[in-house]
Amino acid sequence: MDLKGKIRVIEDFPKPGISFKDITTLLKDAEALKETVQRMAEHFLDCGVEMIVGVESRGFILGAPLAYEMGLGFVLIRKPKKLPGDVLSVQYNLEYGTDHLEIHADAFSPGTKVLVVDDLLATGGTIEAAIQLIQKLGGDVAGLAFLIYDIFSLVRYEE
Amino acid sequence: MDLKGKIRVIEDFPKPGISFKDITTLLKDAEALKETVQRMAEHFLDCGVEMIVGVESRGFILGAPLAYEMGLGFVLIRKPKKLPGDVLSVQYNLEYGTDHLEIHADAFSPGTKVLVVDDLLATGGTIEAAIQLIQKLGGDVAGLAFLIYDIFSLVRYEE
Repeated sequence: MDLKGKIRVIEDFPKPGISFKDITTLLKDAEALKETVQRMAEHFLDCGVEMIVGVESRGFILGAPLAYEMGLGFVLIRKPKKLPGDVLSVQYNLEYGTDHLEIHADAFSPGTKVLVVDDLLATGGTIEAAIQLIQKLGGDVAGLAFLIYDIFSLVRYEE
Repeated sequence: MDLKGKIRVIEDFPKPGISFKDITTLLKDAEALKETVQRMAEHFLDCGVEMIVGVESRGFILGAPLAYEMGLGFVLIRKPKKLPGDVLSVQYNLEYGTDHLEIHADAFSPGTKVLVVDDLLATGGTIEAAIQLIQKLGGDVAGLAFLIYDIFSLVRYEE
């Protein structure tokens, strides 16, 4: 299936000059959603992944079914003040200013091999912050999965 | 499996006096996540559901794997200015003030039978807004699925 063709491009969103890759047209297509999740799962089948981590909020939409398909648990990385328990936090740079991401301090045990899922790799600032959080918790980043412009550039992260 | 026992209660979050039901402890447990999604799917097996709609953002975490399991597409209801295409919008009341929810105007065809998923039914304001959006699009709300305090009160919505 041509998964790339299922993604709609919307010009000038969220601001002029940006071509936004809208994955909602893929998500609402049952066959495309199924194939997306299955291809991701197959790619990481032999990586010994023990936990899926999704980055708020489009990373939740892909990460949760991937966890379900792979028979793994699912951990959230969220924006500040969304997670109710004790958290670890990291700051990262935006185009203007900074923001934070958080993970529950008891999200997984040290040494756990985790796969991080987000919809898009752009500047890499978000995923870098996510990796830092996982490493702060003693986790082992076994892989990174994105659904980007050239769909299924599933980047294998080597520490 | 005692799914209710997998949910952690955190007192005084997000503010004093509130006992917050933290579903992250269920989500990170592979078996609990699997059983949660499977029970939801089984409950709605004979309802003729054609599309799953998830409400931002914890509704995404349960709705996306449910869509995957049921072999259906997944549609997002989001906070304002998150969806890039043409949207329909409804206003709903918060404890103080109001907020809006949005859905893509082309999310599904009129007459589509949809199942709406969110993590928690509290005051009902959010789900009422979600139902209004779906009906504005001509959709047929075939069911509502929540993961609430007394877990798996899967409420069947009768129009």
